[in-house]
Amino acid sequence: MTATHQRIVLASRPQGRVTPENFRLERVPVPEPGPGQILVRNHYLSLDPYMRGRMEESKSYAAPQPLGETMIGGTVGVVERSNHAQYAVGDTVVGILGWQEYALSDGQQLMKVDSRLVPMSAYLGAVGMPGVTAWYGLNRICQPKPGETVLVSAASGAVGSVVGQLAKVGGCRAVGIAGGPEKCAYVVSELGFDACIDHREHKDARSMAHAIKAAAPDGVDALFENVGGHCLDGALACMNPFGRIALCGLIAGYDGSDIAIHNVRYLLVMRLRVQGFIVSEHMDAWPQALAELGRGVASGRIKYRESVAEGLAAAPEAFIGLLQGRNFGKQLVKLV
Amino acid sequence: MTATHQRIVLASRPQGRVTPENFRLERVPVPEPGPGQILVRNHYLSLDPYMRGRMEESKSYAAPQPLGETMIGGTVGVVERSNHAQYAVGDTVVGILGWQEYALSDGQQLMKVDSRLVPMSAYLGAVGMPGVTAWYGLNRICQPKPGETVLVSAASGAVGSVVGQLAKVGGCRAVGIAGGPEKCAYVVSELGFDACIDHREHKDARSMAHAIKAAAPDGVDALFENVGGHCLDGALACMNPFGRIALCGLIAGYDGSDIAIHNVRYLLVMRLRVQGFIVSEHMDAWPQALAELGRGVASGRIKYRESVAEGLAAAPEAFIGLLQGRNFGKQLVKLV
Repeated sequence: MTATHQRIVLASRPQGRVTPENFRLERVPVPEPGPGQILVRNHYLSLDPYMRGRMEESKSYAAPQPLGETMIGGTVGVVERSNHAQYAVGDTVVGILGWQEYALSDGQQLMKVDSRLVPMSAYLGAVGMPGVTAWYGLNRICQPKPGETVLVSAASGAVGSVVGQLAKVGGCRAVGIAGGPEKCAYVVSELGFDACIDHREHKDARSMAHAIKAAAPDGVDALFENVGGHCLDGALACMNPFGRIALCGLIAGYDGSDIAIHNVRYLLVMRLRVQGFIVSEHMDAWPQALAELGRGVASGRIKYRESVAEGLAAAPEAFIGLLQGRNFGKQLVKLV
Repeated sequence: MTATHQRIVLASRPQGRVTPENFRLERVPVPEPGPGQILVRNHYLSLDPYMRGRMEESKSYAAPQPLGETMIGGTVGVVERSNHAQYAVGDTVVGILGWQEYALSDGQQLMKVDSRLVPMSAYLGAVGMPGVTAWYGLNRICQPKPGETVLVSAASGAVGSVVGQLAKVGGCRAVGIAGGPEKCAYVVSELGFDACIDHREHKDARSMAHAIKAAAPDGVDALFENVGGHCLDGALACMNPFGRIALCGLIAGYDGSDIAIHNVRYLLVMRLRVQGFIVSEHMDAWPQALAELGRGVASGRIKYRESVAEGLAAAPEAFIGLLQGRNFGKQLVKLV
């Protein structure tokens, strides 16, 4: 009898909000590695906002996720069988092996990692794509100087939490925006931000701007934007001249909500620079970023928090929760 | 009897749209140049959209225009009396001497120009601040490569007309947006743009985007934005990956109209860069820009058009017309 495993495919494209019915859990045979291939057992699946874009048919920065195929997703796992000279059984590997328990790989787009000093799951968070996203957006786009104020939305999340901690290391004032008092308290007392604003208490741009001005009395020099909508609109009104905005995500709009910006004039009046980016297009930055982030996590200087859903079947609900901000820290699915 | 001259002061700040009552024409004595000063007779006054911002009390990139004082404005004129070693009677000088027929200057922020090869008035347009604005935004922010498509709004205006002509010189496809068939025809047949879209025929972002896609079949690589509102919103939907947007003006919003951007997601999805700027903060670029623009105008390669109002008393109505797009080319007031 052939061994089987579980995978989740895209069953349908969302109309507005993502629903569980957009996904389908399938049981399929565990594949056999051919020549030059390895079989990886995925231990953790990463859930990330970018996946929402892939579920759309419309023009995005990447090809859409095909219907009926395994959902795209970052994974960390262990090599179980190997026909590849550079990978041995037992190696821990990070890759983009999708929403499934097992996967084949030819070793391309795969990275062997050391899980002795850094926990395996961190390679999907602070020492992985989200961490590098934070590092790149902050260091290469925002380029804050010591003493400047950095504002970051989704501050308790996988990306935002690293942005603020790196900003503090760089001598900046770090101000976060997060959803709810528990997350805000964590951002300040655990992550060491100087202040954190609860966006649930400030539901329009004017109120948000007022709160930001109170938390950033010298104005905002750099904004790392993950959310969009009234958070971004309010933040624009608080930017200092020559402010930089790293536009990393617009999660407020991913389910079709209008995320119009009304405070457009500040872009001109304050001579702001906005730069949209995706970190996979800047591979040259990854080695330095991963090295710094790995040292930070191993030494305990960079802290992080995880929301872990148990078992592949829990992935759709966990993903929907992520889009709604129900996660607290990096959203993972534990598969083993 | 003391000789007198006319000046226009800001009488009140506009509530929404600018009205003639916001200005007051006064007759005052022609001033006497003291030691180190010169007396300039202004021949042309430049009217520019930035003046609208100065009329506001609110935070802008510059100090507000004080009430009861001579309106700020660029001028070109001739030295009539001189107590300054570097200026002789008869010299043609460009400066910011305001909405008035005569002005004193100590020679600071004043530039002697040669009106033999380039007409005096051009130093307020294609070979002046508007021309340098075009040059800077195109060359330093948009940085288009040959073969790329450059889109510019207010394309028949003092800035936009130069943007498109420089883009053509640089081997780009130049697409303009202007108001009305007459301006559009001029932009294509006289200025040499490849296409021009009449924004009056496309009154929402979707229709504008459709028109831009037809005029820019390969998409838009660089946008020089002077207008904002639905022109900008529609253009965002047509940008190619890694597109650059030089944000120079938002004239659609200067009278208080909402100029919200709804197509925010394209900033992220297409990894766009937006840079607001004002040219007076980049004085290092002026010498090169003015030299190139002067050669272009003198040789006839750079064409321009002027709307000339006669006499200082006509300035308020001409300025209101400028804000409404009634001018056709650079708006000037002829004072002599």
